Amino acid sequence: MKIDVLTLFPEMFEGVFNHSILKKAQEADAFQYKLVNFRDYSENKHKKVDDYPYGGGAGMVLTPQPLFDAVEDLSAGFDNKPRVVLLCPQGETHTQEKAVELSKEEHLIFICGHYEGYDERIREHLATDEISIGDYVLTGGELGAMVVIDSVVRLLPGVLGNDSSAPEDSFSNGLLEHPHYTRPVEFRGLRVPDVLVSGNHGKIAEWRKLQSLKRTFERRRDLLENYPLSFKEKEWLESLK
Amino acid sequence: MKIDVLTLFPEMFEGVFNHSILKKAQEADAFQYKLVNFRDYSENKHKKVDDYPYGGGAGMVLTPQPLFDAVEDLSAGFDNKPRVVLLCPQGETHTQEKAVELSKEEHLIFICGHYEGYDERIREHLATDEISIGDYVLTGGELGAMVVIDSVVRLLPGVLGNDSSAPEDSFSNGLLEHPHYTRPVEFRGLRVPDVLVSGNHGKIAEWRKLQSLKRTFERRRDLLENYPLSFKEKEWLESLK
Repeated sequence: MKIDVLTLFPEMFEGVFNHSILKKAQEADAFQYKLVNFRDYSENKHKKVDDYPYGGGAGMVLTPQPLFDAVEDLSAGFDNKPRVVLLCPQGETHTQEKAVELSKEEHLIFICGHYEGYDERIREHLATDEISIGDYVLTGGELGAMVVIDSVVRLLPGVLGNDSSAPEDSFSNGLLEHPHYTRPVEFRGLRVPDVLVSGNHGKIAEWRKLQSLKRTFERRRDLLENYPLSFKEKEWLESLK
Repeated sequence: MKIDVLTLFPEMFEGVFNHSILKKAQEADAFQYKLVNFRDYSENKHKKVDDYPYGGGAGMVLTPQPLFDAVEDLSAGFDNKPRVVLLCPQGETHTQEKAVELSKEEHLIFICGHYEGYDERIREHLATDEISIGDYVLTGGELGAMVVIDSVVRLLPGVLGNDSSAPEDSFSNGLLEHPHYTRPVEFRGLRVPDVLVSGNHGKIAEWRKLQSLKRTFERRRDLLENYPLSFKEKEWLESLK
């Protein structure tokens, strides 16, 4: 997979892209990235990329020319059109399903605004996707792009060392994860639940399933709406209520 | 405000913390941060911070000792207890309201797991808050911490240059923002809507309000549930349906 990021702050990405899973993914040749300062594409003699909004108002707006030209330049030579993802608060909320969908693409281009809004023509005629990572205000699209890229790249073949670790993650079975405990068995008077040190694998599996259900019920009841409950799980849930 | 981040990958934060709004906030003395590798607090002779889960299963679990000791050390000398925020998929989903709440604190400590889960005793007896930034799987808590910190720090007094720009942002009035346009008035045959270049401020304000409502209706109908509609807005909405 090839990922291009259009940003006015390419240096923001270095710490994240040079560590952890994203570094491993590059080493495993699972993806290559390019950080592109779209100011370099500006035809304005002062290399301006934003301008005042028509109709007045506070804040600046990113002009279409540098971004249209950058996307065209980065798309040249590919048979398939890239997905062009605009990070913005008005976008669809990012989900694991969307990450899976994007992980099947060959070429992704991310556009990060910063402070400014986007000229609507960028939104309507350049972007193929508009994504928001959540209902909170951030300074720019850079953190959003890093989040979406992390969620996508970890799904690429060969990236996670242990192939079995991906499906057990939270959200992939539709429930929140059960509690984990590790050594010591007692820490500052706080003990690990007896069942986990019992050696009874059947009971451990049942305890974990119940805890997972309980936690989801207490914290994210909305997730249960789409979860197919077994007869036993229905009984458990009734007893929790 | 003082922010401490407990992480195994402190270098991941450098690009983000040394640029953009977070840098400005430090220069304005609005916040100071410390990146702490909690491995330094491990009493294990190999400086291990994780161990196998009781009861078996894939993946490692962060042990309580290094994190408890780190938080105690970082809290020493403060009159008020810090808020200790654990980034995890099981946490409450981050919101703008939560960002506002956290921005009123004097001292925040963020705990970032990476690959591993947390020993439940960390969750129950050390963390004051558990936050998830959204329903997607990330490699670690680092990106989540950066996102929450950005959303909080930009709300601190003196951080945003133009004090009027915060309240006009998306979400702060409960609707998605209206479209923006800037020069040129025609770009590749795509024209700015006539009303925005009309000079009629009343009509511009009305157009923007309607567009904002329309976009929210089309993309995020859930946001309208808590939005107090005026009589005129109700009429508009009916005509959209």
